[in-house]
Amino acid sequence: MLTFIGLGLYDERSITVEGKEALRDADRAFAEFYTSTLVGTTVAELEEYHDTQIEVRDREGVERSPGEILDAAETADVAFLTAGDTMISTTHVDLRLRAHDRGIETRVVHGTTAQAAASALTGLQNYRFGKATTLPFAYAHGADGLPASVTETIDENRDRGLHTLVYLDIKVDNAAAVARSEDDEIEEYMTASTAAEYLADEYPETLGVVVARAGSPDPVVAADSMCGLASRSFGGPLHLLVVPGELHHIERDALRDLADAPDSSLD
Amino acid sequence: MLTFIGLGLYDERSITVEGKEALRDADRAFAEFYTSTLVGTTVAELEEYHDTQIEVRDREGVERSPGEILDAAETADVAFLTAGDTMISTTHVDLRLRAHDRGIETRVVHGTTAQAAASALTGLQNYRFGKATTLPFAYAHGADGLPASVTETIDENRDRGLHTLVYLDIKVDNAAAVARSEDDEIEEYMTASTAAEYLADEYPETLGVVVARAGSPDPVVAADSMCGLASRSFGGPLHLLVVPGELHHIERDALRDLADAPDSSLD
Repeated sequence: MLTFIGLGLYDERSITVEGKEALRDADRAFAEFYTSTLVGTTVAELEEYHDTQIEVRDREGVERSPGEILDAAETADVAFLTAGDTMISTTHVDLRLRAHDRGIETRVVHGTTAQAAASALTGLQNYRFGKATTLPFAYAHGADGLPASVTETIDENRDRGLHTLVYLDIKVDNAAAVARSEDDEIEEYMTASTAAEYLADEYPETLGVVVARAGSPDPVVAADSMCGLASRSFGGPLHLLVVPGELHHIERDALRDLADAPDSSLD
Repeated sequence: MLTFIGLGLYDERSITVEGKEALRDADRAFAEFYTSTLVGTTVAELEEYHDTQIEVRDREGVERSPGEILDAAETADVAFLTAGDTMISTTHVDLRLRAHDRGIETRVVHGTTAQAAASALTGLQNYRFGKATTLPFAYAHGADGLPASVTETIDENRDRGLHTLVYLDIKVDNAAAVARSEDDEIEEYMTASTAAEYLADEYPETLGVVVARAGSPDPVVAADSMCGLASRSFGGPLHLLVVPGELHHIERDALRDLADAPDSSLD
């Protein structure tokens, strides 16, 4: 039995009660934190809170060599943990399908997601979001300027009046370690300031909305022009950014009241 | 203080640990179940589980006359509970803004959502979904055939290769009571069979994916043509339906292995 358990957004208390109980009942627990992470806790704190050992695996150990996890799940109740909801990432669907191929029963215990938080904390309505996109670090995608995948998504959504959730790059694997050894200034978790700076190349006066530390007791939500956001700082990770499309009047009120959007940016 | 707490998808254990603790610490708890509901539990069971009284309000009591909730939140720690994530619905953003206007501190404790589950349980990738839509009961929207809001959303998403999450109508308020008195056959929670029957008018051979009872221990996931889905039954509520766009090869494998999609429907 392989149970995929989403740890939610922020710390050891972001998991659901169902997830906590499933983890308690598991014989063995694996986790990965390269697709996302919980900035409000540590693996040691998670282990203490859940009174269990958590075996953290890197990308290699999940994607190329998942044999250890699958072997264990053939004979025991194994939990596989990630931040957010475990199945948001393609790579874990692949792990689930491999388990299925081997006749291992699987189950998903959902976690809270950045996608829901992006809507909930900003007041921007869930059903008014189009396709989401991920903004990579410039050194990671190689080309000059913004990748076409990002601008096309934002532009197509805006043409339809829709909001775009922009996930910000995370580099905590080997590639980042190499990059870091060459440049100490590099970020592991892209900040919204950096993202706004990238986006300001194409969208300098466009309204953006930053959400920092979603799921924490004190999330920051801030709306401003991309240039304005690029010059501000929003504290520790994780950050995400929304590029709104057309605004419903309640969305406008929410951005003014909850995100301190300047009136000029809401016209 | 007004704390919006998402109860998650299914029963009393779908709430996060953080939400459970926030509810425990609240002086008074209100809830509404007209935007969605927890089919795996009852208000009485929730009250027993959380050892607190829960005051359920109808649409009128939340949207037209929220004064009681706001008055209470001015002097005490008040929790406002809904299924899923509380802020997914516009109406609760409005309640939050009213609290803000009165100088009442607000906080959001996120819950797991149908949106995340639709992706997680089907293997369809989160970032390949376009705008979502809601399919209303025929008696509720009045016109013949599918509403343009539904077909336009599906068609525009498919033009871009994107998946569409179709939320299914819920009628548990007064309008439904009136409708029910006229027709005992009416559903409170639209089933995926009914939804597929509606959609088969325009999209008879198009692939659809049903998710029934997301967040429960035994969710059902089934992929078939709309006509095929319309003739099947998926058990008790809540249901939702996804109209996939282009399929990535892992998504195709997932629909075959996890949703028993007929090979012919995946071509």
